[in-house]
Amino acid sequence: MTDPSPEFRVAREDLHRFMQAALGAAGADQASAEAVTRALVTASRMGTDSHGLRLLPHYLQALKGGRINGSPNMRFQQRLAATGFLDADDGLGHLAGYTAMEHAMEMAAEVGMGAVAVGNSSHFGAAGCYALAAAERGYLGMAFCNSDPFVLLHDGAKPFHGTNPIAFAAPVAGEAPYLLDMATSSVPWNRVQQYGAIGRELPDQVAADATGQVSRIPSEVAALLPLGGSAFGFKGAGLGGMVEILSSMLSGMQHGFKLLPMGGPDMATPRGVGHFFLAMNPDAFVDEGTFARGLAEYLADLRVQPAAEGAEVLAPGDREWRCQSKRDTEGIPLDAANQLAYAEIAKQYPIAPLTQLC
Amino acid sequence: MTDPSPEFRVAREDLHRFMQAALGAAGADQASAEAVTRALVTASRMGTDSHGLRLLPHYLQALKGGRINGSPNMRFQQRLAATGFLDADDGLGHLAGYTAMEHAMEMAAEVGMGAVAVGNSSHFGAAGCYALAAAERGYLGMAFCNSDPFVLLHDGAKPFHGTNPIAFAAPVAGEAPYLLDMATSSVPWNRVQQYGAIGRELPDQVAADATGQVSRIPSEVAALLPLGGSAFGFKGAGLGGMVEILSSMLSGMQHGFKLLPMGGPDMATPRGVGHFFLAMNPDAFVDEGTFARGLAEYLADLRVQPAAEGAEVLAPGDREWRCQSKRDTEGIPLDAANQLAYAEIAKQYPIAPLTQLC
Repeated sequence: MTDPSPEFRVAREDLHRFMQAALGAAGADQASAEAVTRALVTASRMGTDSHGLRLLPHYLQALKGGRINGSPNMRFQQRLAATGFLDADDGLGHLAGYTAMEHAMEMAAEVGMGAVAVGNSSHFGAAGCYALAAAERGYLGMAFCNSDPFVLLHDGAKPFHGTNPIAFAAPVAGEAPYLLDMATSSVPWNRVQQYGAIGRELPDQVAADATGQVSRIPSEVAALLPLGGSAFGFKGAGLGGMVEILSSMLSGMQHGFKLLPMGGPDMATPRGVGHFFLAMNPDAFVDEGTFARGLAEYLADLRVQPAAEGAEVLAPGDREWRCQSKRDTEGIPLDAANQLAYAEIAKQYPIAPLTQLC
Repeated sequence: MTDPSPEFRVAREDLHRFMQAALGAAGADQASAEAVTRALVTASRMGTDSHGLRLLPHYLQALKGGRINGSPNMRFQQRLAATGFLDADDGLGHLAGYTAMEHAMEMAAEVGMGAVAVGNSSHFGAAGCYALAAAERGYLGMAFCNSDPFVLLHDGAKPFHGTNPIAFAAPVAGEAPYLLDMATSSVPWNRVQQYGAIGRELPDQVAADATGQVSRIPSEVAALLPLGGSAFGFKGAGLGGMVEILSSMLSGMQHGFKLLPMGGPDMATPRGVGHFFLAMNPDAFVDEGTFARGLAEYLADLRVQPAAEGAEVLAPGDREWRCQSKRDTEGIPLDAANQLAYAEIAKQYPIAPLTQLC
């Protein structure tokens, strides 16, 4: 291929087309390919680049290696009126996620809330996608997932928890949802890599070396600190543990410390990732409309709060919706590494390459 | 009274007796007095001194002022099979909390999970008490509460959220529960006061002055930073917002920014605090026993992880259960200020004073 462009952007429809074709060619059935594409395009539109289009090559590799089952027979077992279990049959976590949240919403429509634990799954991309899927249909949504170990316990010297994310979304009448999607670590792992690549020191209290000592030098970093750093990391570690209990224990999976690493080298053995999803009907607690009015008032009050100098006060999701609007117009950017990776996929399968918008 | 002792400890039974008598004398009915006493003694036994016995004088003042209704007619309205609303009738938040969690557990027994939003309530002490009440009965429990503003938004210059706590507890077979109880601020407000009292600088990135600039000088502090500090406070602020949405919006209450301050001076007007409680039956997702086995294995793996030098790795709750065991033997300590406050209460109502164990 030609050298990467300094600025390369694609239309989301084109990205959608490319992803579906590549996933199909790598063995994903239509439902699986659609779910992955939906999740990755959602994340890339919002600017969550760590969990967007850059993950496609990884999923293709895991499908080809056999770790992930491209044609899973996912079986949902309703256990009680508000609870269920989804066996994801080692399929793609994105299909598991959207399917489980769908069942949780059905239960929420019936009994006010519903939750689904998912076992035998795999990496599902950004947790926010599934919380968002609930909010788009008028439900409060929560999503949790375990992950292989990157993060110290509070006062710990070695990684134990994964970045164990928490996502929460709430529907806002006439507006894009409230959307929080956060790792329970101080920073994501790829932040360390990004800082390393540009030779920059990390912020204090976000990462540690191989002995568990706080380090700001990316090349020395062997673990992330839990949210809260050395002094208050019991909060991040406690939240990470909550995510572990919901995702691993309620699904009957092994906890994250025992998961095979996402990055391989073993791309043949299913990892048995666990997720947990919860949906609530906001009108199942107080009179219809009360929740919507209260949330609108809260967000209006929040957005007019005075900001620190040179900064801006935003509600969770505001930055993402702004990015989405921009990228829907201007296209979704691919950095040099992703341009190369996508060109390689186009050649390999083969698929018509992405069309450069600029 | 005589001067305070340098070391003054009381038996929990004696503290229990004293609190019940004082609350009753200040106008609380038996159920209310029992609930407050249960919550405060629970917190004091565990070492959560910020939310333990030191709060009794505050509740007595709020009862006497009329802000809190000592004989509330709390009305529970089951809305759907998994959801309900409790109108706390401006009563004590502790009675509201235990009552609401009881209803949530009843629903969890029937349909796998249950949640109750509580409105027209008041300060409920430590959120952990109610999560714990669920775990003691074999349920996963979560508790949330709004609070008057102390905490900056991310990039904000003025307090907007309260310390909006999250509590999560899980039952552990044959052991004390997993218990996380955390404010979504970096530190509690009384940490600032404690540091001020001993003339010590605060840790970096936990508090700010009246202009929203980070400050380590207690006397300058006008607000707390959200968990995560200046760089990552969008996580703490986003969690604080989640707590607000669950506690304020699902209960139809006004959000925390508009709450009258807990500390007064108005002790006559009900505050309309909101809470949210959730209970889940862990065996409503996977086969009975799977959850318990998985959690035991996770905690065993966690507790043998290597610790940072001079530190110890603990699961959330471990420190609290250790403290509880010690205080059940040696007594619960009262500092000088609390000795004076309790002596004053004894004289005022009058009640037989606490008996000093040492």
